Amino acid sequence: MNKIITISREFGAGGHTIGKRVAQELGIEFYDRDIVRETAKASGIDPALIENEGEDVSRTDSILKTICSASSLQFNDTQEVIHDVQQAIIVRLAQKGPCVILGRCADEALREAGIDSLNVFIHADDIHRAVRASELLGSTNATEIQKLMAKKDNSRHTYYSHYTGKKWGDCHSYHLTLDSGALGYDLCVKLIVEAAKSCE
Amino acid sequence: MNKIITISREFGAGGHTIGKRVAQELGIEFYDRDIVRETAKASGIDPALIENEGEDVSRTDSILKTICSASSLQFNDTQEVIHDVQQAIIVRLAQKGPCVILGRCADEALREAGIDSLNVFIHADDIHRAVRASELLGSTNATEIQKLMAKKDNSRHTYYSHYTGKKWGDCHSYHLTLDSGALGYDLCVKLIVEAAKSCE
Repeated sequence: MNKIITISREFGAGGHTIGKRVAQELGIEFYDRDIVRETAKASGIDPALIENEGEDVSRTDSILKTICSASSLQFNDTQEVIHDVQQAIIVRLAQKGPCVILGRCADEALREAGIDSLNVFIHADDIHRAVRASELLGSTNATEIQKLMAKKDNSRHTYYSHYTGKKWGDCHSYHLTLDSGALGYDLCVKLIVEAAKSCE
Repeated sequence: MNKIITISREFGAGGHTIGKRVAQELGIEFYDRDIVRETAKASGIDPALIENEGEDVSRTDSILKTICSASSLQFNDTQEVIHDVQQAIIVRLAQKGPCVILGRCADEALREAGIDSLNVFIHADDIHRAVRASELLGSTNATEIQKLMAKKDNSRHTYYSHYTGKKWGDCHSYHLTLDSGALGYDLCVKLIVEAAKSCE
């Protein structure tokens, strides 16, 4: 295995932090928003639009609809184009060398391209996630946090299922799943690094 | 965490081998069929009957039915009694000291008793499992192996869902899930041992 690690994660489960630390410990690249920016550059689509699209395949963004209505593209077509460009960029990044790639169905993109990767899913119970989300958002509004957690999870779930045909969070879709709430971030980093080193 | 590890597993995914090696490496007890035997001793129920019952809550065993019809117990009642005795024994074994417990909803029994444990699920793709099952059974009859894999998985799935209300194999039910086919047994052992040591 060429030390390419994909990380899928629930909102507030620390996937970003853990992924970044794994990349640092292994001395390899870490890709998250960079993919979005590269997608924008490569496709010529407005970067702000792609930034918003992210993993939210279910949403009906008014700006996107306006743009689509002013062009020959259908709403869904645009989403598919953005996704396809993202997948192509993920494959290109993985071909460049060892890296950690966060979200965006990177596992499926690499599988389709015949590139081996260590696929990880990070989850946590609602309490740990709510506390983490509160810290991320700088908010103590529990209702707002609860709604955002549900919305983000639903978006990622829909996005993953839509593009891979698999169930997001089902252990069979990953080589390794970790409960970051119970295990702690330090141990999650350690286990992923250990797995990546052993899979070489 | 008192180094108590529960392992749930798919048939042919190497859960027994991995669990036993984890216990050896940590120098702690390993419980599998021992639980069944202790259940028999404690309950006074025919050991052979309990051995057969195992995790197959869905089956309608003719011997069990015969015994039930000759007593005041209903078929389902007997299964519930066996399960309850098993759960009580699992709790008692965990209270004795650090150990690895295989199957039988040990995670749920310990959770209900307020005992912390590291809960692991081991799975693998059908190819790896079929090869392992062939080795275990000493058979090269693919149809027989396929049927047995489906039957065993279905039994464990039904048993776990019935007694825990959770989904067997859903990563949210475990702290750690591992694909033993992709990662290999050695790495699975290493990661579980690492997690157990860090959770102390």
